[in-house]
Amino acid sequence: MGRWEPNATDRLVVAALELFETNGYENTTVIGIAERAGLTKSTFFRHFQDKREVLFGRSSLADVLAEGIAKAPADAEPLEAVACALELLAQDVFTPERRDFIARRQAVVATHPELREREALKGLGLIAAMTGALERRGLPALTARVTAELGALALELAYTRWGSASRDFTEVAREALDEVRSAAPAR
Amino acid sequence: MGRWEPNATDRLVVAALELFETNGYENTTVIGIAERAGLTKSTFFRHFQDKREVLFGRSSLADVLAEGIAKAPADAEPLEAVACALELLAQDVFTPERRDFIARRQAVVATHPELREREALKGLGLIAAMTGALERRGLPALTARVTAELGALALELAYTRWGSASRDFTEVAREALDEVRSAAPAR
Repeated sequence: MGRWEPNATDRLVVAALELFETNGYENTTVIGIAERAGLTKSTFFRHFQDKREVLFGRSSLADVLAEGIAKAPADAEPLEAVACALELLAQDVFTPERRDFIARRQAVVATHPELREREALKGLGLIAAMTGALERRGLPALTARVTAELGALALELAYTRWGSASRDFTEVAREALDEVRSAAPAR
Repeated sequence: MGRWEPNATDRLVVAALELFETNGYENTTVIGIAERAGLTKSTFFRHFQDKREVLFGRSSLADVLAEGIAKAPADAEPLEAVACALELLAQDVFTPERRDFIARRQAVVATHPELREREALKGLGLIAAMTGALERRGLPALTARVTAELGALALELAYTRWGSASRDFTEVAREALDEVRSAAPAR
């Protein structure tokens, strides 16, 4: 067992991001990341499964989204419950201080198919988490799923736009949710 | 270069499916699949990239869906264009003769995380293909994307139900599309 390393996770994430930016994802090794962070390879593997996971393992968006949906007022419409979840995300994860970091992370993820693939799979995990949380509010399974799909699409739009905007995530997210709602087919 | 092997693709797919069913995905090797099909390992790799791809590389659902959307009447509503695509799928791919095979394939895919992951990624490819085809009909990008997401959800439902039903895919798909439409939020 290694000794306790203060902020090891943060240091590893920042080191990885810098190396991916400078040398490319392909040319970066786990040892290189650990060294840059002043840590050992085994410390790396106590925090992350592999090189790819270092950009994905950190924040549990799925848990925050599920919590936000659960906490929405009992009489909130399905998409309104999703809006509450996106607000909680703005408070807990997508804070103004993190915007630059997130924009850099986005740019790196876009550079490599393996990273884009992992991002896509994480997106499916978010849909599953939101679907579950909406079902626990008593919604029929299919309504929950459709709402979660639309919510995930709004989240994706907001996430992309927020990285290059200078507005609060809540505002960008609300706008995206309205757009997605208007784009949905008439019943 | 190997000699021409009649129906090599089909033989490999059937052999793989049988071995996955009998011995499990994990315990099946490419050599084992090739041998069971009466072919060589190098013939296998001329047809498929890896063991996983053998259940996914065959039919190009994305192309059929895009074609069906392109061929829909010019005045068709967005989701109606998707319905046309699902009909073409019923004619070209999900034919009654293939139902048993598809049901077995579904059961095997469900057994292993690697296969479920590949299936999920293929699903995202279908959404992208439908989004593109809908945009080429002149729809705004977001309307195209939302419609494609709903269409993919209907396809997923229909695909799952059809495997265990004794009805035409067109009928199951149309029903699923109606359900998804009703589950979409009011604007």
